[in-house]
Amino acid sequence: MGKLYLIGLGPGGPLQLTRQAYEALAASDVLCGYTGYIALAKDWFPEKETYATPMTQELDRCRWALETARGGRTVALLSSGDAGVYGMAGPLLQLTQGAQDVEIQVIPGVTAALSGAAVLGAPLMHDFCLISLSDLLTPWEQIEKRLIHAAQGDWVIVLYNPGSKKRRDYLRRACDLLLQYKSPETVCGWVRNIGREGTTHQTLTLKELRETEVDMFTTVFIGSSTTQTVGPWMVTPRGYERKR
Amino acid sequence: MGKLYLIGLGPGGPLQLTRQAYEALAASDVLCGYTGYIALAKDWFPEKETYATPMTQELDRCRWALETARGGRTVALLSSGDAGVYGMAGPLLQLTQGAQDVEIQVIPGVTAALSGAAVLGAPLMHDFCLISLSDLLTPWEQIEKRLIHAAQGDWVIVLYNPGSKKRRDYLRRACDLLLQYKSPETVCGWVRNIGREGTTHQTLTLKELRETEVDMFTTVFIGSSTTQTVGPWMVTPRGYERKR
Repeated sequence: MGKLYLIGLGPGGPLQLTRQAYEALAASDVLCGYTGYIALAKDWFPEKETYATPMTQELDRCRWALETARGGRTVALLSSGDAGVYGMAGPLLQLTQGAQDVEIQVIPGVTAALSGAAVLGAPLMHDFCLISLSDLLTPWEQIEKRLIHAAQGDWVIVLYNPGSKKRRDYLRRACDLLLQYKSPETVCGWVRNIGREGTTHQTLTLKELRETEVDMFTTVFIGSSTTQTVGPWMVTPRGYERKR
Repeated sequence: MGKLYLIGLGPGGPLQLTRQAYEALAASDVLCGYTGYIALAKDWFPEKETYATPMTQELDRCRWALETARGGRTVALLSSGDAGVYGMAGPLLQLTQGAQDVEIQVIPGVTAALSGAAVLGAPLMHDFCLISLSDLLTPWEQIEKRLIHAAQGDWVIVLYNPGSKKRRDYLRRACDLLLQYKSPETVCGWVRNIGREGTTHQTLTLKELRETEVDMFTTVFIGSSTTQTVGPWMVTPRGYERKR
């Protein structure tokens, strides 16, 4: 029986994937994924056969990976971050329609919420939520609804896909909505190019974040009411100080 | 200047930490952490000096790590999962009070939401939120408020610390609250002992979850309104099927 690994590469550096992910890549006959991720994996395994397709070809890639594994080979389907967080694990498992004719293993990785948080300090020490601002696959009304409930529930909010060339004003629209429920002084942060060359980051207030231009390589963190700055760090208290 | 690494070990197996975490452990003079995690690290680095303290000694451990690094040594402070998610990164950074007399680096790891999701399939393919049911450091009223907003925002919900000997009925109380807003047929799952020997898991409905006994080694996943089962897997669609 063929085998299919759904692998999260982490933020992108060669040290940022798990040893389990690295070993699964090593054990695979062929690596399949978005062109950019395949280029990363080629640095580590230059001799491996690859199947690379550009962005927007996600379902094509899944179909190819599943068919190739059904042919008896061991295939690695790559996602950045975690394969199970806005990655390829879901579409691939749906394509199987439940058939168990291929051995499938999902291998988790460090998603941008975690790798970005580590750059900023410890913003995610307590309950947090993820919201993607991309309305390519989700109606904007649902995104707005989640932003409002996230503010009312006072989570730390991590925004994926906060902007792109076509969606320049989405972060501003999200901030305007959040400012109806949260203080303009709420501690926020952003990290760009996490784990790659030229990582940049900033800690700033919600009202300053509203004026910030971001792109698709940026992850945004919006603090809860208790999030604070400690020197250069963004930190959400876990609550030990209350206990003492 | 001394150096302090705040390291997330991932779920616990020797293959589940990142290569960056492994190299930081190797580069450290002394490993500091909860007794159970130090036992894990000792398997990999039997010759290293260690400072292990039992559960509830979190702040003591942070103080010791910071003072030891201030003395000029390289110290690794260990958390399971991710040091920045209900881990030691926050308390440690708060203890510094912003002083930058020690070089500090947070090294992220695979938190239980990600490693548990990989066991169940792909429940976290779209927006999700984390809620800890432990009221040791958080008032129960705030936990209830977040549960209600999580249901109304229709996130996939990941429950950390869903139960313990002293908090036997907390998961039932959470389910009762969620059942006011969500279908009893909502697809849910749980994973116990993630990444260790004897991992067990189950996919079940919200009304069945209500009747389930869990312990502190269990992570619970409650689907959104679109989460489904696909064969043995728990999957939340990302939305490609809508696009096509």
